[in-house]
Amino acid sequence: MEQNKENMAAKQETVVSNTSGKPPASKDFVINLDVGDPTMYESFWKGMGDQGAITILSSQTISYFSDVTNFCWFLEPEFAREIRRLHKLVGNAVTEDQHLIVGTGSSQLLQAAVYALSPSDTPDQMNVVSVVPYYSSYAPLMDYLRSRLFRWAGDACTFKGDAYIELVCSPSNPDGFLRQAFLKSEGGKTIHDLAYYWPQYTPITSPADHDISIFTISKSIGHAGSRLGWALVKDAAVARKMTKFIELSTIGVSKVSQIRATKILKVVSDSYEHPIPGNPDKLFDFGRRLLVNRWKKLREAVKASGIFSLPEFPSETCKFTGEKAETLPAFAWLKCEKEGIEDCASFLRTHKILTRGGSYFGASPNYTRVSMIDRDETFDLFTERLSSLH
Amino acid sequence: MEQNKENMAAKQETVVSNTSGKPPASKDFVINLDVGDPTMYESFWKGMGDQGAITILSSQTISYFSDVTNFCWFLEPEFAREIRRLHKLVGNAVTEDQHLIVGTGSSQLLQAAVYALSPSDTPDQMNVVSVVPYYSSYAPLMDYLRSRLFRWAGDACTFKGDAYIELVCSPSNPDGFLRQAFLKSEGGKTIHDLAYYWPQYTPITSPADHDISIFTISKSIGHAGSRLGWALVKDAAVARKMTKFIELSTIGVSKVSQIRATKILKVVSDSYEHPIPGNPDKLFDFGRRLLVNRWKKLREAVKASGIFSLPEFPSETCKFTGEKAETLPAFAWLKCEKEGIEDCASFLRTHKILTRGGSYFGASPNYTRVSMIDRDETFDLFTERLSSLH
Repeated sequence: MEQNKENMAAKQETVVSNTSGKPPASKDFVINLDVGDPTMYESFWKGMGDQGAITILSSQTISYFSDVTNFCWFLEPEFAREIRRLHKLVGNAVTEDQHLIVGTGSSQLLQAAVYALSPSDTPDQMNVVSVVPYYSSYAPLMDYLRSRLFRWAGDACTFKGDAYIELVCSPSNPDGFLRQAFLKSEGGKTIHDLAYYWPQYTPITSPADHDISIFTISKSIGHAGSRLGWALVKDAAVARKMTKFIELSTIGVSKVSQIRATKILKVVSDSYEHPIPGNPDKLFDFGRRLLVNRWKKLREAVKASGIFSLPEFPSETCKFTGEKAETLPAFAWLKCEKEGIEDCASFLRTHKILTRGGSYFGASPNYTRVSMIDRDETFDLFTERLSSLH
Repeated sequence: MEQNKENMAAKQETVVSNTSGKPPASKDFVINLDVGDPTMYESFWKGMGDQGAITILSSQTISYFSDVTNFCWFLEPEFAREIRRLHKLVGNAVTEDQHLIVGTGSSQLLQAAVYALSPSDTPDQMNVVSVVPYYSSYAPLMDYLRSRLFRWAGDACTFKGDAYIELVCSPSNPDGFLRQAFLKSEGGKTIHDLAYYWPQYTPITSPADHDISIFTISKSIGHAGSRLGWALVKDAAVARKMTKFIELSTIGVSKVSQIRATKILKVVSDSYEHPIPGNPDKLFDFGRRLLVNRWKKLREAVKASGIFSLPEFPSETCKFTGEKAETLPAFAWLKCEKEGIEDCASFLRTHKILTRGGSYFGASPNYTRVSMIDRDETFDLFTERLSSLH
């Protein structure tokens, strides 16, 4: 977000973005695809009309507590049920014998997980690592409070030692590839960040079944503004310590967001399990259709330009759809191949396209990350402008 | 929350509490008044019927962003307007020339403020202090991540040095008295925690106008489950750093909670500014009426018992109501005066009354804190049981 704000502050221009809520008024406007703001889902939810709408009375959600019989006392039971139901429907995660924890977005859960896995009784800090290119927020999230419990230690591939937590983002933000843990030490721990393991972005090949898996409402169904994520956690003691972190950090998670998301999740699962005649669209189908189209347009623009390249992905059978499916990441990991241009993001910025440069991901500045999940108008302007760059 | 959960786990009994959502079924049940869960407001909001109800469509609040023109980009503009309007109506805080920041409850804002006031370029940690008895969460909030930036340093009255942040909770949780900063060093900083500076709890004598003032939806209007608080901050750089903290911690604050709270705040302010005939009740009047009645009952129970004492408070003219008003804290700071009983909370626990002992507040275990803002049934059982203890 910071870079995004800096970009905007520096430019002092009207920005065509995820953020403005308005279609672009001119072709010269700044195109902001730095943040992965999932506004492409707005048109789907607008098309759903009253479905998913919820009326909340002023007498609801007053208490701090959602369920005192649950160790995660701030988890709304209906929200938990709909999460488990969705995973079962999609087949992307095992939920049996897993403890479910809700968080204020997946960032909070990631911090909670690192906190829970870092011993408090040793003088040494836990080293938190991830394979390059890693999600740009991992480093600042680990270091902003200068904790004595843990620290960011960079690229997993160059890490030596046994005391580590490896963050495994699969499909990977920024590059879209499926990943497995790189380090294999007995003493090491892993946290799987599965924000993008949903059928619109990647073929679902098997249900995830890790020690800790983290998901988010933002990227699964598009509701970033609700600030909701969840974790599936095998070990009860780890789950309790994560819950304690969220209790200290924010005394739980918005119940208003949870009961509202419950309704929306129900609409998504119902649309597959109990389809209504004359109500043709379904969320994952919508997402896939849009991303197929966008990736096609982007590859055409890259080809037309002649100075960029994109990763190539294998196709696999998706167990959710039963069909052979391409990988269609939520971000494009764009490389500038033109000689003399070493910083792809800076080059694009001179053409009023804001993206997030490779160095934020521990990678070469030849690369930059571009959001593929913004509104249609923004995306179309982007591919149009990109194809004109030579 | 931890103590509350431990209490419950240890007892393995059905608990009459803020948490169960059900009235007590038997006089022998455990009475849980450990947490300040503001469920006494439920009956007010039930009485309001459809007023304050809100319908949210599934196409709303999708983007991360609320207002990219504001440095606090996750603050809903309408929420900000209603917060400023309420302060103006009540007269409890100056909002002109103050930056407004929303947080996921006041705990997050407190951490954000300490983060913002702690320099990152010195090897020494900032010392965070507060006058005994201080709010029981201050110490764990400062120390759970073992930050190198700041640390909990205990009672402000015994602190020596210049590098400190004093947390000033006024009216004080747990004891209800109005407080001013105790330390006066030029280099020191203060954060005012004004969660209880509302006319149901204390006469409003002047509008607060501090460097940093923190408020919460939980205690002002009773909606703890929304997880919303706000800060008024004079210095722009501090406000920006607090915003950065919340961006890292949770990438902003639930927009669903904010738009819902906006509606509820509007109902509160409208009821005073544009009263509807035949709609007699108003939130602060309701709160005051209940607390007048509860404090009367509690003082009678304490008298009947003969082994406890309570603080005595001065009456002052409240500028909001224009009337002479008693102090009616959200917590009772109960002292056990009986010889041989040194731990008031343990003594009450043997009588199945759960409260939070004085040692959590840096004070003597002769004291314990009792929530005054739970549901009627719980409070009535409490005073009944208390009056029978001799």
